[in-house]
Amino acid sequence: MRYPSHLIKLIQILKKLPGVGTKSAERFAFQLIDWKREELEDFAKIVGQVPDQIQPCALCGCLKAEGGCVFCEDSRRLESKVMCVICSPKDAFAIEETREYKGLYHVLGGLLSPLNGFGPERLSLGNLKKRIETFSIQEVVIALDSTLEGDATALYLKRELAPYSLEISRLAFGLPVGSSLDYVDGGTLARAFSGRGSF
Amino acid sequence: MRYPSHLIKLIQILKKLPGVGTKSAERFAFQLIDWKREELEDFAKIVGQVPDQIQPCALCGCLKAEGGCVFCEDSRRLESKVMCVICSPKDAFAIEETREYKGLYHVLGGLLSPLNGFGPERLSLGNLKKRIETFSIQEVVIALDSTLEGDATALYLKRELAPYSLEISRLAFGLPVGSSLDYVDGGTLARAFSGRGSF
Repeated sequence: MRYPSHLIKLIQILKKLPGVGTKSAERFAFQLIDWKREELEDFAKIVGQVPDQIQPCALCGCLKAEGGCVFCEDSRRLESKVMCVICSPKDAFAIEETREYKGLYHVLGGLLSPLNGFGPERLSLGNLKKRIETFSIQEVVIALDSTLEGDATALYLKRELAPYSLEISRLAFGLPVGSSLDYVDGGTLARAFSGRGSF
Repeated sequence: MRYPSHLIKLIQILKKLPGVGTKSAERFAFQLIDWKREELEDFAKIVGQVPDQIQPCALCGCLKAEGGCVFCEDSRRLESKVMCVICSPKDAFAIEETREYKGLYHVLGGLLSPLNGFGPERLSLGNLKKRIETFSIQEVVIALDSTLEGDATALYLKRELAPYSLEISRLAFGLPVGSSLDYVDGGTLARAFSGRGSF
């Protein structure tokens, strides 16, 4: 038996959310049917207002807070001369949580993935270079995923930024805090060994 | 660092979806930010139209298709004199998939759960009794979950329907098809034993 056509539409659009397959989308849809009219209208309004209410900073690409970009408008961050390159605005929130970093950010907008048609032209690279010059940045911290795409993008960045006189660093690799050696994969253990420090 | 206020609103409302916690809601929200304006407007429109476009049949509680209720308006189903009691409209779709059943449906609207404040007054019971009389139903099939709440509701229904001269049946319990005895729990195995049939 076919679902009513509007239900099919609802399921189709819910399936676009990350990690949501047909089964989950159906579960979501049938629960949405049970929501009160006001709740659904609220949900619709909030989703519809996203493009107007949540906007990236034109400079760094991080999400602007009410009033402006908390990073680009912070004079102490500007004076730090350090710029952390991240893939998406979400990463800035995760890094800020650690309270380990007080410099500027730059959102690349993606990772190189030739098979998915994501080439270097889609990275926000021109802007990065301009900002490095404008703010006379002295260190670029590459904070990208430790995946094939992240590694490729990091190497590409390193080559592109070579002409500038700045230090380029990348996040350390090693044991996750709280992990047991039994459960750590070989690649991670190898990196933890080669990167061991005095203790 | 706090998320922008609209992002917080978005995460809060996404968390109302079943099985979606803070982490998943954040993942959904950050992906929604990347959607095109038209996609978001589409999503908002589809969600907002749910109460007008997807409606339960006033009689049986199943979702109406374009034009009307495919169950209540099917004369062969009316003549079958069998009524299957289900918890939510979703169950009718699952049962229809099996092509094992060609009778009427009745959506109860929930399962008894005193701890969650869901009492008998919230079951669509008056309607069920009225329909049993109107259509001179001869068999009621109870197709409810095999959980504490499902069992309690089934027993309650059995008692409530006792005054009517009709057969009351419940879905069979036993081994899931394709399962291995190694992985079947004791309760299921016991029910499969006591319900064994000639072969």
